[in-house]
Amino acid sequence: MLLLLLIPLIAGMFSILLALYFAKIVLDEDPGNERMREVSGYIESGAKTYIKVQYKVLTIFVIALAFVVLFLIEPGKLSLDSMISYLIGCIGSMAAGYLGMLVGVKANSRAAQGCKVSLKKGFDISFLGGCVMGLAVVGVALIGVSLIYWISGEARVVLGFSFGASGIALFMKCGGGIFTKTADVGADLVGKAEYDLPEDDPRNPAAIADNVGDNVGDIAGMGSDLFDSYVAAILGSMLLSVTAGFADLLNPQTDLRLFVILPILLNSFGLFASISGIYFIKKWKSGEPGKLLNYGTYFSTISFVGLSAICVLIISFFAHSGDASLLWAFWLCAIIGLFSGIIIGLTSDYYTREDKKPTQSIAHAAEEGDAVVILSGFSYGLMSTLPPTIGIVLATALSYIIPYLVTGGSYIAGVYGVSIAGTGMLAIVGTIVSNDAYGPICDNARGIAEQGELGDDTIKIADSLDMAGNTAKAITKGYAIGSANLTVLALLFAFTQDAQINVVNGIPVINMLQISVLIGAFLGVVSPALFSALLILGVQRNASKMVDEIRRQFDEEPRILTGEVGADFNKCIDIATTGSLKELIIPSIISILIPFVVGVLFGVAALAAFLAGAILSGFIFAIMMSNAGGAWDNAKKWIEDGNLGGKGTAAHKASITGDTVGDPFKDTAGPSINTLLVVMSLTASIFILFFLSIEGGAGLLGALL
Amino acid sequence: MLLLLLIPLIAGMFSILLALYFAKIVLDEDPGNERMREVSGYIESGAKTYIKVQYKVLTIFVIALAFVVLFLIEPGKLSLDSMISYLIGCIGSMAAGYLGMLVGVKANSRAAQGCKVSLKKGFDISFLGGCVMGLAVVGVALIGVSLIYWISGEARVVLGFSFGASGIALFMKCGGGIFTKTADVGADLVGKAEYDLPEDDPRNPAAIADNVGDNVGDIAGMGSDLFDSYVAAILGSMLLSVTAGFADLLNPQTDLRLFVILPILLNSFGLFASISGIYFIKKWKSGEPGKLLNYGTYFSTISFVGLSAICVLIISFFAHSGDASLLWAFWLCAIIGLFSGIIIGLTSDYYTREDKKPTQSIAHAAEEGDAVVILSGFSYGLMSTLPPTIGIVLATALSYIIPYLVTGGSYIAGVYGVSIAGTGMLAIVGTIVSNDAYGPICDNARGIAEQGELGDDTIKIADSLDMAGNTAKAITKGYAIGSANLTVLALLFAFTQDAQINVVNGIPVINMLQISVLIGAFLGVVSPALFSALLILGVQRNASKMVDEIRRQFDEEPRILTGEVGADFNKCIDIATTGSLKELIIPSIISILIPFVVGVLFGVAALAAFLAGAILSGFIFAIMMSNAGGAWDNAKKWIEDGNLGGKGTAAHKASITGDTVGDPFKDTAGPSINTLLVVMSLTASIFILFFLSIEGGAGLLGALL
Repeated sequence: MLLLLLIPLIAGMFSILLALYFAKIVLDEDPGNERMREVSGYIESGAKTYIKVQYKVLTIFVIALAFVVLFLIEPGKLSLDSMISYLIGCIGSMAAGYLGMLVGVKANSRAAQGCKVSLKKGFDISFLGGCVMGLAVVGVALIGVSLIYWISGEARVVLGFSFGASGIALFMKCGGGIFTKTADVGADLVGKAEYDLPEDDPRNPAAIADNVGDNVGDIAGMGSDLFDSYVAAILGSMLLSVTAGFADLLNPQTDLRLFVILPILLNSFGLFASISGIYFIKKWKSGEPGKLLNYGTYFSTISFVGLSAICVLIISFFAHSGDASLLWAFWLCAIIGLFSGIIIGLTSDYYTREDKKPTQSIAHAAEEGDAVVILSGFSYGLMSTLPPTIGIVLATALSYIIPYLVTGGSYIAGVYGVSIAGTGMLAIVGTIVSNDAYGPICDNARGIAEQGELGDDTIKIADSLDMAGNTAKAITKGYAIGSANLTVLALLFAFTQDAQINVVNGIPVINMLQISVLIGAFLGVVSPALFSALLILGVQRNASKMVDEIRRQFDEEPRILTGEVGADFNKCIDIATTGSLKELIIPSIISILIPFVVGVLFGVAALAAFLAGAILSGFIFAIMMSNAGGAWDNAKKWIEDGNLGGKGTAAHKASITGDTVGDPFKDTAGPSINTLLVVMSLTASIFILFFLSIEGGAGLLGALL
Repeated sequence: MLLLLLIPLIAGMFSILLALYFAKIVLDEDPGNERMREVSGYIESGAKTYIKVQYKVLTIFVIALAFVVLFLIEPGKLSLDSMISYLIGCIGSMAAGYLGMLVGVKANSRAAQGCKVSLKKGFDISFLGGCVMGLAVVGVALIGVSLIYWISGEARVVLGFSFGASGIALFMKCGGGIFTKTADVGADLVGKAEYDLPEDDPRNPAAIADNVGDNVGDIAGMGSDLFDSYVAAILGSMLLSVTAGFADLLNPQTDLRLFVILPILLNSFGLFASISGIYFIKKWKSGEPGKLLNYGTYFSTISFVGLSAICVLIISFFAHSGDASLLWAFWLCAIIGLFSGIIIGLTSDYYTREDKKPTQSIAHAAEEGDAVVILSGFSYGLMSTLPPTIGIVLATALSYIIPYLVTGGSYIAGVYGVSIAGTGMLAIVGTIVSNDAYGPICDNARGIAEQGELGDDTIKIADSLDMAGNTAKAITKGYAIGSANLTVLALLFAFTQDAQINVVNGIPVINMLQISVLIGAFLGVVSPALFSALLILGVQRNASKMVDEIRRQFDEEPRILTGEVGADFNKCIDIATTGSLKELIIPSIISILIPFVVGVLFGVAALAAFLAGAILSGFIFAIMMSNAGGAWDNAKKWIEDGNLGGKGTAAHKASITGDTVGDPFKDTAGPSINTLLVVMSLTASIFILFFLSIEGGAGLLGALL
């Protein structure tokens, strides 16, 4: 039976080989003239410095947590297998992130040079560069999950792997998010606003840090974030499949393990769907790059419908025929998940597209000043939470109802269906990460084309590639938030199945009217707000140091502004690096500590409510901040395209304010909330035995509340 | 037994008589010179016009809803008593609001004239003017609740009264909030920013509308909001006391009705505590007005400790002695509630005070530009949600645990304790509303002193009175949000007691893991976000019409700017009035419709989760927006006091942007969320029998989810 795991292993290895092959294609390209190689070298060395410092701190953190995992996960016993699984998760995530980012920084000058040849050439290099990250993420994840389950035979051991991946993601996503916005906001506030330097101007001391930020925040950060969600989604289904009651649903002859590995198998075929989408994009000869990326996503989605059906046929062959209807029900859940992910992505797209009403209203609001543009963007951000909420609610309801009805009313089948919807939503993550990593490569390529003086035509081509990246990004962001939401819901269901909570009518009971549970929910709802505030304040504090440094350089050496003397890029990279690490310490600690404390004080039921509260409010905050940020960004771009008077008007100035406020919203706090939710959910799951050892899971105060 | 209700009836009548007496004192004062009377007359007629239009629309709305109440509250039967109670609630709230506001607008010119005599004189007039609203609110509420219960003998009939009060509050609070910020933002954006006119300059066509806004938004709106919370808090306790199980806690000889009227009696003594606080403030001879108002609040608080103990002694006398410990337990809950309300108010004060770190950080952020000041204020607003969350959690936990332990583990005693904490928190609402209504009177007095050319010294005195109002306001706002939160929690408990939900170990079960319940919670969490967005967009749309009108007046008649020709104030008042009514239609409808639809589709358990979700996220949004808005406002004032370079600097300009963003945050959306929560909770309670008639309360989709 477990021989079926050869499919994900082979798929994973194929994916990694393909990533290496694409990396080779990219590296074989012409890296451009001397100046371009020099700039690219700066970016590369900056990114490597950041990664080195980051990974050094991470190593300490990882080792410290490894011992916590070793001693606390099963109180009284050592859980060596979980610890090893945890370490593999950490190393796997770090390795995938490093490979993807390294190729990303090497692709940028080559993409710029490619733009000199043709749009298609520039596009291909950027896109293949992005694919390296996409394929590496999926490959490492599939191999890791399959091997650990194959060897240990225990779904719960995979929890360690997932916990490792999510700890790394927390660091990479938040740290990268703080880094990139420190540099971006710093560069904008002084360079653009005070000295009127254009974007990516080499005289701006923060220009290279800004480019480095794109790589460490948007490539490495986003990659580790989706690696994290991807593994966690698979894990959620695995954990639910081994809970009591699930086996009763199946024919006695059916091997339960078929359903344990179902999410892994579905995602292996999802990988093939992603690869077919990548192939589709690569083969397409013409067309606007932004549309092309989206067509690739749609093509992957359609492919997945067919490929996953083949997957179900294969599993049906191994399973007793009596379970076919159940398998097809879950297949439907996966399809529902994927489609609703795309739909959620498209609503994000609507709320942030410059040719749609919200962004245009925000742009018009800019005509009335800075305050009005902020109010307008904030309000539309809040409004934009409604469609994805309805999307998630529908996806949850349908993927619950279908298996519930097929099994004649089984709750566990229903929630397993919800978890499979989460897995399905993430099935084509290979395409999504590829599209997403494409963005920063083009962004950098544009900067390098500017600094390498490749001429206006080339810069224009690079610009159009960059804009395509932004369009793709809007969809992938909504998609990432939606899928993380379903994933953490699945983890919540898994947690409550394991938490030995009172079960009524087959449903474990987390009673909101119990005071401890209500308190848990309250603390859960407030957590994402607090976490966002800490990250935004971190960016602000750091950016202000960056501003001081840039001003200092211009003051002490005025020849930087004339271009006679080079700016000190390294100093700015240093500030962003050390600052981002410093600022993520408290958010990281609280993301693990708060659920831990809630579990210890109020017990597992309150902890479940805490997670539910955090999931719901986290979703609202994440969508609001991402969409408001995206809309402000595009409102500014729309004005810069010559609308409402174009650059230099008061409306343009106001729109820049909106964009600057939106920067940490959309690139630091908003997308980091996903990671926060996964980390908190896994913290709950990993220490569940420890919590259960305290007053039987009621917590220290449980007897009173 | 019910003769005890003579206490609240007499207290209520005394309160109203005192209000009328204070009104007479204020009206007997000198209304100042001709110009002052003219301006005051404009404000009065503007406020009356607004109220006339508002009440006309309200009447239609009230009558329409009266029939809904009549037919839907008890499906199949007519519930005439509830309808009458509902109509009395509407009329009572409208009458109290009208009286308070009328005296408020008449007090302003008199207070300005008083400032010419002395600080003390100006303070007294403003304060007594404010007290009229405070005393009228409490008086009408106590009389209404007591009479309805006395005559009907049914706690549930009081629900109609409360529903009426909260419908009016929704209109008055949201409508007033939109009005006041339309005028304020409009006046600032054109008058201050474009034409450099000072605050309250009579050449600004929106100046009078701005003053009217203070009265209709901050006096009438806030008054009806707290009237609403006050009644709802009492109602929550009353409903909980008549649920099954509560009577079992008591000695057989004890009359259950003692506990039904306990919250009314406690609040009657709370009224005496408020009056003693008012007396304290009036008698104090010297001191800084801001501190004086706060001392008055503290004095009322301390008085309540003693007076409520007397109240408990009186009730103990009527009750069988065996219940004394229970009564004292609830007394402790009331005290805990009141103290935690004050503490929550003080944390709001900390986050918005200009001499504390958050506001100062925000002011320093202004030196780095508009975007940074926004990010900083938004982050501190988010951070400021933590202390009040802990405050509410502690108040809830303690007021649950104490009666829980005294009764040897009764859940219903615990939640009744929580509801009494809510009642206790609102006990001194007379003082709170008085302090709050004082603010806009001084604000207007300052404007009239400016326009009546009373000279710099008088304006300076009026200014210091105005600032005292702002300090008091910070505390009362946090307090209002905190008390509304406990109130709606009590209503939630009462709702779930009536909802005939599965009961396990004495606790009704709202299981978050049931999919329909989870969906309910999800929709609940998103509702306050949506509601806030609609209100803010409403202000923005309206303010933009106002801006156009002001520009039109200046363009068509340039002599307005030289002062030769008077501006057309009425046109601006018209825009604010009709606009505010138009913009509150959709928010009002959804606040009643969404809970109704959730109840019909997903059933009562999901509706309870919906309410819980809305309560939790509403609390976060309300605190965040109020505190961020207050901090921005004071950061601007701190800079205007000459710090960081003072007026005219780039930092000052940025701080104005912060203040303008904060205006609809703190005066429209933030405080309206309270009302939203109460309206939604009461909608749930009032239609509970209707919901229970649909599939036994499971809702149309309940069988599937």
